[in-house]
Amino acid sequence: METKPYTKPDEIEKQSFAIITDLLAGRSFPAGEDEIVKRVIHTTADFEYAENLIFSPGAVNRAKEALAAGATVVTDTGMALAGISKPTLERLGGQAVCFMADPEVAAEAKARGVTRAVVSMERAAGLPGELIFAIGNAPTALLRLRELIREGALSPALVIGVPVGFVNVVEAKELFLREETPYIIARGRKGGSNVAAAIVNALLYQLVKREGF
Amino acid sequence: METKPYTKPDEIEKQSFAIITDLLAGRSFPAGEDEIVKRVIHTTADFEYAENLIFSPGAVNRAKEALAAGATVVTDTGMALAGISKPTLERLGGQAVCFMADPEVAAEAKARGVTRAVVSMERAAGLPGELIFAIGNAPTALLRLRELIREGALSPALVIGVPVGFVNVVEAKELFLREETPYIIARGRKGGSNVAAAIVNALLYQLVKREGF
Repeated sequence: METKPYTKPDEIEKQSFAIITDLLAGRSFPAGEDEIVKRVIHTTADFEYAENLIFSPGAVNRAKEALAAGATVVTDTGMALAGISKPTLERLGGQAVCFMADPEVAAEAKARGVTRAVVSMERAAGLPGELIFAIGNAPTALLRLRELIREGALSPALVIGVPVGFVNVVEAKELFLREETPYIIARGRKGGSNVAAAIVNALLYQLVKREGF
Repeated sequence: METKPYTKPDEIEKQSFAIITDLLAGRSFPAGEDEIVKRVIHTTADFEYAENLIFSPGAVNRAKEALAAGATVVTDTGMALAGISKPTLERLGGQAVCFMADPEVAAEAKARGVTRAVVSMERAAGLPGELIFAIGNAPTALLRLRELIREGALSPALVIGVPVGFVNVVEAKELFLREETPYIIARGRKGGSNVAAAIVNALLYQLVKREGF
């Protein structure tokens, strides 16, 4: 096995998706959701996501419409922000933001005795235009989003609820699954910033054809 | 379930590690490796990492010595770079770098017909001081590191070899497992930028006590 001659990244990805499809052994998903499930498996090599990912009815189309209109994607970690394909998002007139590292957010969270994720979600709720939330880490972000939506302070185009973990994570996701808001949730403990970014990218790549990469 | 009153992040993490220890049902790992295995499970909620992670003899101690002396951590993605605790690394006099987004790296890769990861690793090999490589994405990075080490151009303190994927990934890891270089490898298809960052952080947090976070 040599580093040269090498296979191009787009060719590697095509081969990878063919192997994933093969390993899914005939399991099929609705158009739009299929690309998301497979990209998450591509990102994690974890086939449990074929079972875990729950899509609310119409969520994928609603999110794609918002992204096509230049939506803002809000993340709860710098890792998820780093993983989102910004060139693709920007071609659609959108942007990605994360307020977690903002010193004012940290100071307000400390003063109020809440998490930085809570303050970050409140700040994001005030942004103009269509909003998509990509939550890969903090269950408190998901809980605060639910409250803001119920209060009528926020009406997101999509909430990607894939925090990972062992404390309050499963419960926060189960609560959110009962909401009317468009969502994509990874049921159970699994998820992560990489999964959140992969879901955003799987939506973007349905809208913008990439070449070579 | 309310967002207030909330449990502090350090308390949540402590509870999470206790749950992980409990779910590992008496399985134990050598000191130093234990913290790494558990932090990777904390990051992924995937207990397969209790089986997958392979440590070369002495790798953890060698890496901790290098980090204590201000090593540079080289990643193969912006996501892994974003996930590493830079404040902790900087307290030890170290830094983290990633050359993947450098336009010169992209241009050279295109001209030579190799991946950007290959060129990034060559560039990193020329850095001064102790080097730790955290590879969460590109099998070609791992293959090129192996060549550079064999050529005598590089002698890293640690190679974290946890690329994820379906094409060339398993093979690149199996080749690296035969090397004498200190390594931590996630055997099989699984891994990722989040896993790479978690391993670096698990080493750092053994050296620097965090408070509150």
